[in-house]
Amino acid sequence: MLPIPAVGWSPDQRALRILDQRLLPGAEVVRDLVTLDEIVEAIRSLAVRGAPAIGVAAAIGLVVALEADGDGQDARAGALLGGYARRLQHARPTAVNLAWAIDRMVRAAHRAGPGEAGSLLQTLRTEAESIRAEDVAMCEAIGEHGLPIVPDGARVLTHCNAGALATAGIGTALAPLYTAHARGRTLTVYADETRPLRQGARLTAWELARAGISVSVLPDGAAASLLAQGLVDLVIVGADRIAANGDVANKIGTYGVALAAAAHGVPLYVAAPRSTIDPHTATGADIVIEYRDAEELGELPVGVPAWNPAFDVTPRALVRGYLTDRGFLEPPFLPLH
Amino acid sequence: MLPIPAVGWSPDQRALRILDQRLLPGAEVVRDLVTLDEIVEAIRSLAVRGAPAIGVAAAIGLVVALEADGDGQDARAGALLGGYARRLQHARPTAVNLAWAIDRMVRAAHRAGPGEAGSLLQTLRTEAESIRAEDVAMCEAIGEHGLPIVPDGARVLTHCNAGALATAGIGTALAPLYTAHARGRTLTVYADETRPLRQGARLTAWELARAGISVSVLPDGAAASLLAQGLVDLVIVGADRIAANGDVANKIGTYGVALAAAAHGVPLYVAAPRSTIDPHTATGADIVIEYRDAEELGELPVGVPAWNPAFDVTPRALVRGYLTDRGFLEPPFLPLH
Repeated sequence: MLPIPAVGWSPDQRALRILDQRLLPGAEVVRDLVTLDEIVEAIRSLAVRGAPAIGVAAAIGLVVALEADGDGQDARAGALLGGYARRLQHARPTAVNLAWAIDRMVRAAHRAGPGEAGSLLQTLRTEAESIRAEDVAMCEAIGEHGLPIVPDGARVLTHCNAGALATAGIGTALAPLYTAHARGRTLTVYADETRPLRQGARLTAWELARAGISVSVLPDGAAASLLAQGLVDLVIVGADRIAANGDVANKIGTYGVALAAAAHGVPLYVAAPRSTIDPHTATGADIVIEYRDAEELGELPVGVPAWNPAFDVTPRALVRGYLTDRGFLEPPFLPLH
Repeated sequence: MLPIPAVGWSPDQRALRILDQRLLPGAEVVRDLVTLDEIVEAIRSLAVRGAPAIGVAAAIGLVVALEADGDGQDARAGALLGGYARRLQHARPTAVNLAWAIDRMVRAAHRAGPGEAGSLLQTLRTEAESIRAEDVAMCEAIGEHGLPIVPDGARVLTHCNAGALATAGIGTALAPLYTAHARGRTLTVYADETRPLRQGARLTAWELARAGISVSVLPDGAAASLLAQGLVDLVIVGADRIAANGDVANKIGTYGVALAAAAHGVPLYVAAPRSTIDPHTATGADIVIEYRDAEELGELPVGVPAWNPAFDVTPRALVRGYLTDRGFLEPPFLPLH
């Protein structure tokens, strides 16, 4: 487990407490944030990252900023709510979980009727705590359901960071590893470096090592060799979105790992909250891929551009199982009604 | 073409002239090296790199150092030869081409009989020039034989640097691209970054852009997506060693690219001098893979090791063709008698 959660309340419940991921793995710095400027900047600058963690940070952040700036008075907090919510949503405009969490907070505020003393801030505080606690429970559920695929001695390859640092709990793709470790199982984990931003080398390796789980880092290009040498029993990755047919959008590099795993008969599991499944996206072809700046790749010759997609799509045929907080699910994924 | 060859003679033929690859792509610095210390240090520190280039650098370097330190006198140069040859060979102990070039120089020296005025240094100079010129010709031949696979408009993916910077000429894997470009064909090249040392981003991208060929850099993990999107017509890579059955050892990451190319029906060609084929290595399983230090991967969490193999093995089944200076060859490769 982490020394503290990636996001949560400060002990006095008056601040958003985060582990500053910009400084990992070199330094372990905890920050208590109260002002809206601090909270927006933490989200914008990736001090907090990972879809679930961002949602929790925004919800808690909204409460503590409104309480501080409204002097604990509902009327003043209510007057600030709309503007604060908009500023938080724009901190990372494409983060679906951020928009979802803020939307949920605003709807809760509307339910808080006038006249009940303290009801608005109390309602918001309760809602933010629900968002946080549900995230923790979601992670725990993925970990429990995933136990059967992580036996004692398992050698696991993962890509990017879908770990505790991306959530308020024990992560998504890494949750079964923490749960298995807590049950006394010995694991060997290989973390792809995950260029260009090195989330595997910086974050996954840090959090697993911090929890006492054996982990090594490899260049992304070495994953196929690791699989060819028979050093991997299973691959677990997270997902940014899962289409109705089971195609999976995840961090760039996942698809190449999936091809190599299939070539060597190693099962690849996708672990993600049920909410990551989008039944309204028919297939991976309908997922728009974001292309990012060349700067992320580091020094390049003058005038040479980069081809730098943020995500790739792994087709359903390469995925052995979809591990969610509701257990293993099978495509096609239909809308929940 | 490059502004100057990666290795060659200085204009007055008294120095080894190199393009310092430690400073690329940020700065284009040419160095003229004469002393043995300078030459050994250039090889050791990768100012000169690439098997063919190292061999040429050692041969020319041996001549110019012996001429300078022996005041142009055969007797004094002959007394220094053995020690200088040993020091050069130890500059990079595992570089087969370096050992081969020095061995060839020493054998030439033995042929230079006593009594013929100027014969030792002259013989060494002639031998070094032969090694250089043969390397240039080898590159040209690969380029000519490779022309049919690089039509006008071809979109090419490559990995690492088997280019002009690795030879005294126009490279091996990149030779057909330079030759096609010189014939007026328009190319689009994608260069894998090639972690951990970024030879693709630093060197391949630099030399192709410098020659006026359109090139983009992508993270290694993005190659499978590039292929999936139909943006690649062919893949060309170099080789460190080719086994008798056609298995290919090349820079780590090549195998993953080969798997992805096969998954999308894109041909992968291996381009290398005929001398890279080792008929005495039966299969890729007989090739010993070097594992390198974690430091190459950049910052890692304290105590976290790296799994950092220098090479991987691409099996014969994933290779469409073997392009050499003798044309396209087919395995099994038998010893040349």
